[in-house]
Amino acid sequence: MSDVISGLKRDFDISFKDVHLLNEAFTHGTYLHENLHDKGRDYQRLEFLGDSVMQLMVADFLYRDFSNWNEGQLTEARISMVQSKSFSHFARLAHFDEYILLSKSSKKQKLNDNDNLLEDIFESFIAALYIDQGIPAVRKFLDKTLFKAFNEGYFNQFVNYKSKLQELVQQVGKVEIKYVVTNQDSINEEEPYYEVDVLINGIKNGSGSGRSIKEAEKIAAQNAYKELSDL
Amino acid sequence: MSDVISGLKRDFDISFKDVHLLNEAFTHGTYLHENLHDKGRDYQRLEFLGDSVMQLMVADFLYRDFSNWNEGQLTEARISMVQSKSFSHFARLAHFDEYILLSKSSKKQKLNDNDNLLEDIFESFIAALYIDQGIPAVRKFLDKTLFKAFNEGYFNQFVNYKSKLQELVQQVGKVEIKYVVTNQDSINEEEPYYEVDVLINGIKNGSGSGRSIKEAEKIAAQNAYKELSDL
Repeated sequence: MSDVISGLKRDFDISFKDVHLLNEAFTHGTYLHENLHDKGRDYQRLEFLGDSVMQLMVADFLYRDFSNWNEGQLTEARISMVQSKSFSHFARLAHFDEYILLSKSSKKQKLNDNDNLLEDIFESFIAALYIDQGIPAVRKFLDKTLFKAFNEGYFNQFVNYKSKLQELVQQVGKVEIKYVVTNQDSINEEEPYYEVDVLINGIKNGSGSGRSIKEAEKIAAQNAYKELSDL
Repeated sequence: MSDVISGLKRDFDISFKDVHLLNEAFTHGTYLHENLHDKGRDYQRLEFLGDSVMQLMVADFLYRDFSNWNEGQLTEARISMVQSKSFSHFARLAHFDEYILLSKSSKKQKLNDNDNLLEDIFESFIAALYIDQGIPAVRKFLDKTLFKAFNEGYFNQFVNYKSKLQELVQQVGKVEIKYVVTNQDSINEEEPYYEVDVLINGIKNGSGSGRSIKEAEKIAAQNAYKELSDL
């Protein structure tokens, strides 16, 4: 347990009053099976609570900070933020994969790097922090992780801008959207590079670059969407 | 608006600091269409937030008050508590159907008695109370409504005890469950009355009564389940 205690202090300046609760948040069932003297619980009850804590924290953040968004936009943003891919990513950034208590065989199978488990552990940690220190402490932790990333555009990658662009331009009738590769380069074989233009009825409306045609198209669509939806 | 202000004061001793927020929680889109001078918003952004507030309040209540329940039992109870049938029921008990601001034609169509709308308004009210007065005020309101009803067994009706009993007894192998009507009576045609026994492998394990065979079977199953799951 010393790892998680010093790690949370170092990375987030968080110190738990109830260390047993913190322990529970990082305990997997297989660990308890192997250590029968440990009369504690696994993380699952905390995960039940943490799921709801995260739903509220994210909804509250969006509701207050984006006061001109309607409920459709709020819901779309919330869905992208509370998905497994999101929570497991931030669990790894916070080194939670190093803190999980597992049986020896589960450790060998690298279960601690499993996305679903990391998502669960992110939620169980959030619940433990909520019980130990209340909503303000959870908000502070998320301001340094999830909400910071949101404000920096991290969640844009989960939005399908190609289909959003399609929907947007189709509001004015029959429109043809084409993606054209305009430049293809590579410094070496491992670093290809593509540039793509979006043509809407033959007229260039945006461009993007990336390490695959797919990535470049996505960024081009995002740029075109942002430009057109601001008109 | 005077109805809802005096009603909330009378029924729950709640007074809003921000009356505009309370107004928004009870405003339907059709009302704004009809009253273009009203530059306010309808309830939908608040409903987005209130949904998450309710998820957390219910999860927190169950997590703390039922410390011996596992995550499966907690999840099952939460699902029964946050469903539309539940919220619309408590919205009616709190007279929210009388407070909704609707267009004249929607009022004529009795939209204010629609389950889905009442569910939404319950959530938008909860969000308004949360923003105006914080979590403790929401908890206090729910202690007088939803949580009180939970402790009085209101939500048992949403649990399928016949299938829960089936699952429970099948853990020990092949078992036959039979429901037998033991008494059938009626004071008059409008008030039939039935008594039912549950036989598990031929042995009586519980009984129930009700105004239909189905209702009597349900209560008998619930009694048998409670007795057997305590063993």
